[in-house]
Amino acid sequence: MAHEPRLTGELRALLHTQRTAALGTTGDDGAAFVSMVPFALEPTLACLVIHVSGLAAHTRRLVDRPRVSLLVMQSEVPGQPVHALPRVTLEGEAGVLRPDSPPWLACRAAYLARFPEAAFLTQLGDFRFVAVQVTRARHVAGFGSARDVDREEVQRVMGLENP
Amino acid sequence: MAHEPRLTGELRALLHTQRTAALGTTGDDGAAFVSMVPFALEPTLACLVIHVSGLAAHTRRLVDRPRVSLLVMQSEVPGQPVHALPRVTLEGEAGVLRPDSPPWLACRAAYLARFPEAAFLTQLGDFRFVAVQVTRARHVAGFGSARDVDREEVQRVMGLENP
Repeated sequence: MAHEPRLTGELRALLHTQRTAALGTTGDDGAAFVSMVPFALEPTLACLVIHVSGLAAHTRRLVDRPRVSLLVMQSEVPGQPVHALPRVTLEGEAGVLRPDSPPWLACRAAYLARFPEAAFLTQLGDFRFVAVQVTRARHVAGFGSARDVDREEVQRVMGLENP
Repeated sequence: MAHEPRLTGELRALLHTQRTAALGTTGDDGAAFVSMVPFALEPTLACLVIHVSGLAAHTRRLVDRPRVSLLVMQSEVPGQPVHALPRVTLEGEAGVLRPDSPPWLACRAAYLARFPEAAFLTQLGDFRFVAVQVTRARHVAGFGSARDVDREEVQRVMGLENP
């Protein structure tokens, strides 16, 4: 990856370093709702993986309206300015995975590799793995440095480190 | 505030410590869009204050559809688990403030008190101050500790420390 453009490298670092996203779903009333989701990246499918409870409000929302938005941002540092914090908004389609299907197995493995401490949650019956296929992104690498990112670049960044 | 319930105190600490929120707005297409916004709290109006560019996608969205959602979460710590990070989703109505009106002056003062480094942005013509009146919230104080918070508690927490 030594030869990829600088901003692509920064986007890669952001997605591979941060572990939580702010998930935006849409309710029956048409209003947005934002909740926190830990996420992993599954390199072969080049998708983002989340693990949601069937009891949570965002789960029914994303089943009913699969177009979702996720914000991943570098953490605030106390005492440091926040306006230029690197972040990316990912837009995509969420799909609940069928247990024991090949994508479910791949996404589960990716999720547990990143979050081994969450293994017990995967044994609870009401949790599902969800894959988000990102279609486009808006990347703010710093102050005055906002750009649109197309699907191909997002998939490359979320995919294998050395394809 | 020594006698307020523990979870109310934790919600207060979260909102007074974190300086960024993930703002969820709804587009013409009905899909949610999540973007980062630095925020301040204005204690007299008991509202949340953001400062948005007229050029940004979220600004037109919140003018057209004022019902918004904001997630405020404690920052990730590298190497530490993330699933139980304290966070709150605030739901409310966003209103663009008229320059030089009393609420604009109050909100501008609260914003600049928290973000003195953003003063130069307030002098750019295309930025507006927006007040979000929160109507309800969902607070996750830790693992297995989720609760609904009513408007009255949210306003108390966002208001004066010693009313």
